[in-house]
Amino acid sequence: MFPGAVAEREAADYVIVGAPLDVSTTFQPGTRFGPDRLRQFARTFDDYDPHTDAHFSSLDVHDHGDVHAWDNAAEYLDYLEGVVTDVEWDDAVPLLLGGEHTVTIAAIRALDPDVFVCLDAHLDLREAYDGNELSHSTVAQHALDVADEAIILGARTGSEDEWQRAREDDVTIVPPEDVDGWIPPESLAREDVYLSVDIDAADPAYAPGTGTLEPFGVTSREMRDVVRTIAPHSVGFDVVEVNDRDDGQAATLGAKLLREFVFAHATQ
Amino acid sequence: MFPGAVAEREAADYVIVGAPLDVSTTFQPGTRFGPDRLRQFARTFDDYDPHTDAHFSSLDVHDHGDVHAWDNAAEYLDYLEGVVTDVEWDDAVPLLLGGEHTVTIAAIRALDPDVFVCLDAHLDLREAYDGNELSHSTVAQHALDVADEAIILGARTGSEDEWQRAREDDVTIVPPEDVDGWIPPESLAREDVYLSVDIDAADPAYAPGTGTLEPFGVTSREMRDVVRTIAPHSVGFDVVEVNDRDDGQAATLGAKLLREFVFAHATQ
Amino acid sequence: MFPGAVAEREAADYVIVGAPLDVSTTFQPGTRFGPDRLRQFARTFDDYDPHTDAHFSSLDVHDHGDVHAWDNAAEYLDYLEGVVTDVEWDDAVPLLLGGEHTVTIAAIRALDPDVFVCLDAHLDLREAYDGNELSHSTVAQHALDVADEAIILGARTGSEDEWQRAREDDVTIVPPEDVDGWIPPESLAREDVYLSVDIDAADPAYAPGTGTLEPFGVTSREMRDVVRTIAPHSVGFDVVEVNDRDDGQAATLGAKLLREFVFAHATQ
Amino acid sequence: MFPGAVAEREAADYVIVGAPLDVSTTFQPGTRFGPDRLRQFARTFDDYDPHTDAHFSSLDVHDHGDVHAWDNAAEYLDYLEGVVTDVEWDDAVPLLLGGEHTVTIAAIRALDPDVFVCLDAHLDLREAYDGNELSHSTVAQHALDVADEAIILGARTGSEDEWQRAREDDVTIVPPEDVDGWIPPESLAREDVYLSVDIDAADPAYAPGTGTLEPFGVTSREMRDVVRTIAPHSVGFDVVEVNDRDDGQAATLGAKLLREFVFAHATQ
Amino acid sequence: MFPGAVAEREAADYVIVGAPLDVSTTFQPGTRFGPDRLRQFARTFDDYDPHTDAHFSSLDVHDHGDVHAWDNAAEYLDYLEGVVTDVEWDDAVPLLLGGEHTVTIAAIRALDPDVFVCLDAHLDLREAYDGNELSHSTVAQHALDVADEAIILGARTGSEDEWQRAREDDVTIVPPEDVDGWIPPESLAREDVYLSVDIDAADPAYAPGTGTLEPFGVTSREMRDVVRTIAPHSVGFDVVEVNDRDDGQAATLGAKLLREFVFAHATQ
Amino acid sequence: MFPGAVAEREAADYVIVGAPLDVSTTFQPGTRFGPDRLRQFARTFDDYDPHTDAHFSSLDVHDHGDVHAWDNAAEYLDYLEGVVTDVEWDDAVPLLLGGEHTVTIAAIRALDPDVFVCLDAHLDLREAYDGNELSHSTVAQHALDVADEAIILGARTGSEDEWQRAREDDVTIVPPEDVDGWIPPESLAREDVYLSVDIDAADPAYAPGTGTLEPFGVTSREMRDVVRTIAPHSVGFDVVEVNDRDDGQAATLGAKLLREFVFAHATQ
Ligand SMILES: [Mn+2]
Ligand SMILES: [Mn+2]
Ligand SMILES: [Mn+2]
Ligand SMILES: [Mn+2]
Ligand SMILES: [Mn+2]
Ligand SMILES: [Mn+2]
Ligand SMILES: [Mn+2]
Ligand SMILES: [Mn+2]
Ligand SMILES: [Mn+2]
Ligand SMILES: [Mn+2]
Ligand SMILES: [Mn+2]
Ligand SMILES: [Mn+2]
Repeated sequence: MFPGAVAEREAADYVIVGAPLDVSTTFQPGTRFGPDRLRQFARTFDDYDPHTDAHFSSLDVHDHGDVHAWDNAAEYLDYLEGVVTDVEWDDAVPLLLGGEHTVTIAAIRALDPDVFVCLDAHLDLREAYDGNELSHSTVAQHALDVADEAIILGARTGSEDEWQRAREDDVTIVPPEDVDGWIPPESLAREDVYLSVDIDAADPAYAPGTGTLEPFGVTSREMRDVVRTIAPHSVGFDVVEVNDRDDGQAATLGAKLLREFVFAHATQ
Repeated sequence: MFPGAVAEREAADYVIVGAPLDVSTTFQPGTRFGPDRLRQFARTFDDYDPHTDAHFSSLDVHDHGDVHAWDNAAEYLDYLEGVVTDVEWDDAVPLLLGGEHTVTIAAIRALDPDVFVCLDAHLDLREAYDGNELSHSTVAQHALDVADEAIILGARTGSEDEWQRAREDDVTIVPPEDVDGWIPPESLAREDVYLSVDIDAADPAYAPGTGTLEPFGVTSREMRDVVRTIAPHSVGFDVVEVNDRDDGQAATLGAKLLREFVFAHATQ
Repeated sequence: MFPGAVAEREAADYVIVGAPLDVSTTFQPGTRFGPDRLRQFARTFDDYDPHTDAHFSSLDVHDHGDVHAWDNAAEYLDYLEGVVTDVEWDDAVPLLLGGEHTVTIAAIRALDPDVFVCLDAHLDLREAYDGNELSHSTVAQHALDVADEAIILGARTGSEDEWQRAREDDVTIVPPEDVDGWIPPESLAREDVYLSVDIDAADPAYAPGTGTLEPFGVTSREMRDVVRTIAPHSVGFDVVEVNDRDDGQAATLGAKLLREFVFAHATQ
Repeated sequence: MFPGAVAEREAADYVIVGAPLDVSTTFQPGTRFGPDRLRQFARTFDDYDPHTDAHFSSLDVHDHGDVHAWDNAAEYLDYLEGVVTDVEWDDAVPLLLGGEHTVTIAAIRALDPDVFVCLDAHLDLREAYDGNELSHSTVAQHALDVADEAIILGARTGSEDEWQRAREDDVTIVPPEDVDGWIPPESLAREDVYLSVDIDAADPAYAPGTGTLEPFGVTSREMRDVVRTIAPHSVGFDVVEVNDRDDGQAATLGAKLLREFVFAHATQ
Repeated sequence: MFPGAVAEREAADYVIVGAPLDVSTTFQPGTRFGPDRLRQFARTFDDYDPHTDAHFSSLDVHDHGDVHAWDNAAEYLDYLEGVVTDVEWDDAVPLLLGGEHTVTIAAIRALDPDVFVCLDAHLDLREAYDGNELSHSTVAQHALDVADEAIILGARTGSEDEWQRAREDDVTIVPPEDVDGWIPPESLAREDVYLSVDIDAADPAYAPGTGTLEPFGVTSREMRDVVRTIAPHSVGFDVVEVNDRDDGQAATLGAKLLREFVFAHATQ
Repeated sequence: MFPGAVAEREAADYVIVGAPLDVSTTFQPGTRFGPDRLRQFARTFDDYDPHTDAHFSSLDVHDHGDVHAWDNAAEYLDYLEGVVTDVEWDDAVPLLLGGEHTVTIAAIRALDPDVFVCLDAHLDLREAYDGNELSHSTVAQHALDVADEAIILGARTGSEDEWQRAREDDVTIVPPEDVDGWIPPESLAREDVYLSVDIDAADPAYAPGTGTLEPFGVTSREMRDVVRTIAPHSVGFDVVEVNDRDDGQAATLGAKLLREFVFAHATQ
């Protein structure tokens, strides 16, 4: 159980769902251990948050446990979409623990947001990768099947086609250098937003335990500020691409950002 | 390049093929780094082998490099089968570096052996795993589509169905306790054999860097003796399921067993 | 949850209790992560056991979760004793996951066995260590406050006083060299036995992830055979001193021995 | 021996004392290896410091070695207080190498400073933790039994009670965002200050090897500047909560900050 | 092969040469694994670079492989100098992958630049270290035997003699605090520059996998900006002192900086 | 200090000398950390030895500390030879902690034994390696410059020339399979013997933390029995080639064997 997620399912305002999918990771695998790592390194945090004057354990967070993953990503996403839909029908906000970024597709399909906001080193705007249309590198593309707009913060790499796609009107790229002090468009306040945190948005110094490390990234505080800014407008959240190949940095940061999301969302 | 594999392809009697497939690993992923690890830890070995009075670098071994893997196992196995077939047509013996055990299926299909001999903790006699008919746990079952007989040494775990399947006439199980001093059936000398080494046959003390650790296994010397016994009758060989999650034990053992195979095969 | 421990508490014949106490570890700390590691590395095992022709998930094992530890060992042992007593009153066999060896004291006090059988590199017969009467090195001494007899298998080190204590009639030491093929006294069949597995009984090759490594130990198969022999006569079991400072060897072995206990006990 | 700490005890102006206490660590244990790690990673530094134009080995630093820790924190602190008192009576400045933060209590009691300045992610203002009044999370509270004032830099988490306590007049909190360029109150120049560096003040990117990682922390340069500013007014110093669970980052930073303290203090 | 270095030698504009020398490393050895690590962690990068609108695989980079190192540094440098000279004669730019910093000496001797620009925590201006005139800590000194001028960015430590040497006219030191926004002297545009990246210039948060960690260093972005600025004027490049003792941070950063060099040089 | 080595130098019967030379290691470096690791993992042992009924701390062992190593192996060996000679002149038995195997040469030269007994995976009978006559792989050859005879137990690899050299009368090879129960020639009792333990004699399962792992080795108990057999006739001892690249297995085994040597020698 995620520390402090003590609410019963019926009473929950937030439902944590572990989604340890790990089939399309390109370089270093291990995101299947992401949900476990995130829960483990969250033990270190105080229950109380001075920024919002709230206790995490009082915010009615429930931990659903993990949705056991198998090899067929398409089937898995279908099933996971159902789990997330159930959460939404219960009027709770789903909080996914990845697993590879692909799991975000299930949440987007279930929640049907207007805007997809994402912290990521990568554009994830591919049509497919090595022929796989459900690769982690297609997430933003899939999100745009559902959402009207995508905002990708911290993005610094992609294929030439992805960068071309990113120049279209429905995509906004905020490079790492511009994340500090970034202000979202005013319209965002009137939209349903889904917020996805690919931990590799961070510079590898802050989150080495991820599949594809990309230098020149965002700092942990910049990620926190984005989460605090976007959370109040969000209908769902995830933190993905954390693996077990570091000394806890990635999991600690990811778990903390999940808590920041809940504090900011609950006390808006 | 595998150390000592200095032959040109045309002149080669043995061709090493890296097959870093890593999609169906059940527990700990990382077999995609297997070929690299095996080559790296093989640097530590002397070229000369006192047991056979031969130099590895004189045995005409060529390293083909890796066959880059992608997510679709079925397509990958088709492609890999072609690569192995090419090796056979050149009258060379293919030596695969896994990658997950699934890659063995490609080699079996290409080489069409009479007998499948395997060192493995697992029976690998499933029809499918989580719906996946190309899971690493189906290898022996696939082998029996081609071969007349399977001999699995060191096997100590499987599903109830697998154990039932193992009781049929075409399967011989040699439990870990009986591997020491095991003598193959005489008929083996008249057959084409394929020898597959799943490194998890070893007790985890000898090879912790693998996906599914299973205690009470075989010692490194027992594995060596099986390789020396079977190699002279073999038309192909692989070592699979080595990952990068230990301090070099699994890769060192795997690379050494590959060399034992070549020495025993070449000097028979 | 320990994989396969799917029974409800009321229906359980076996109850797993995590006891992550980690205050008196002498050298390398980390046993607080023992229960997590044991559960994690148990995922790798097949449900079915060919030795007993049984499925683990059919043997009515329940996982109680962890009894959160705090700094005061005396108070913690009192509390834990209550938890174990509850299990016994429900006619179930408690299976503790340490945590340091000290947690065994709570189980012994709750279960009041006649004989204490222990796999351990250490005698654990101290009166106190650095003034601490509840050090992990006093466990066998505490056990003898309750039990009439202690049998310590694999023991190879201790203080001079401990070795002198070990020469008394109520203690039997089976050195590592004699564990293979060891036959328990016939009387054992008529007694209530408690079986405790300190993972450091194993040679460090088999279980490097423990607090105090002691060479020249027992092999994994020898430990298995002891567990299979003693389990049918046992009223309780634990596996302790596993930490997270290796590549999974210690946890894999410990989790497997717990399963061996349940299979052997349930199918006697 | 800490590299460069070549002075004899009698001639020493600074005395390093290892204090490897490791009993109340909340999450990841291992601070018992802190003194060893700090000494080991200090080998990498040049003797000469360009900032102060001084050689560390000329500043009369002596390494007392470690005060072997045992389980009873209260007794240990008493003993350690004696060791630190001896250092003070010899007119030398004590430099503690933790061990958990609790060891600071002994130094404070021995040195009786007016002001307690601390770099820490945590307020450490608890009365007790899990009933333990000598937990590492009570250090600042204990310091205020002796000192008139506490200044905690980099603090970003604590219980609600701790934050309430922090609002009283005798406590100053400098959040991580305000540490850069922080100027101490003028009055500090006229006071006896004790400076304690809990390495978790740093962002986990800079010091992952610590018990409780807390994101959004201070940079290494900001910590250095605080040490340089406070050192000239200090009667004692410590660096605590370094463990062996990273690749040397925490120990390297901690050892460097100790040297910065000595250079700044000696050349004021 | 370095990912994307697909050019044949004859057609190459850039030639990567691995130089895994690892004999004089002062503290933590392992730079012999540097070339392998750099190639491995470079797999994670997209081929396309949005900053220069170029594909790495189109820039005619060839990977020569490694020049196997042996114990005699003097002989090795002679041999390596020949290899680099061959590259220059082929009108290609050599890109060395260290190995210890000493290998830079061979490149400097082969290329005879006017200016030596170096990112390094250390001055490397010693005459010798422990009597060794070919220690990694003498590199800048050797460079000045050839070049007229040395600019060392990020330097923060050295012996008193080195700092004195650094005050002479032919050496410019840019301390870490001044690297951000640093503008090279105009004259640089008219000179042949050699650019050497000792990965320990970075703060240990960004590159823990190196021999001698030195806190208070440069950020990854600052290093990138230096590389982009200097590359257009450069006749050669290296990245050195990366080892295998971290979770990929150092190798990822080093490999990325090599790519930044090629992109900036090729598209100037 | 090696735990229990509490004697003053003048009163010592045994003198431990750390010799962290690490220049010619062929594959994985890190033996420079060997003495530290051996001392650290020796903390786990009880002072008392039941086999000889003796306390280690009563056997007058002194720890001289380390002889700081530098790059020039020839000079270092000269210096180290002097240190060992001093020990012998004080009528004490030197116990070296390597460092690479090369350091044994210094001890042999100082002690002038009749017989060189060595546990090693390698013959170490080269004249030179990559031109280096002081490589770790030449140790037995150098020993035979001084001693009349060499006995190498556990040897299983070497060059063809080394195996040919090994066939001469003054060399006895005991392959790993024959170490169990090996009985030394009677004549040994009348000779001065030097006993050298290269930790790679052990199978990698027992000692993965070494430079060149070689499968099919000796067990820890077999090594112990050799040490106990040879120690009474020995004038010097070393344990070498331990590095820091495992989870403590190699250092624990090495430190234990040193203690076995002292117990067996002192109580003969
Ligand atoms: Mn992504
Ligand atoms: Mn990404
Ligand atoms: Mn298999
Ligand atoms: Mn298997
Ligand atoms: Mn015990
Ligand atoms: Mn024990
Ligand atoms: Mn603190
Ligand atoms: Mn703290
Ligand atoms: Mn340098
Ligand atoms: Mn440097
Ligand atoms: Mn040797
Ligand atoms: Mn050797």
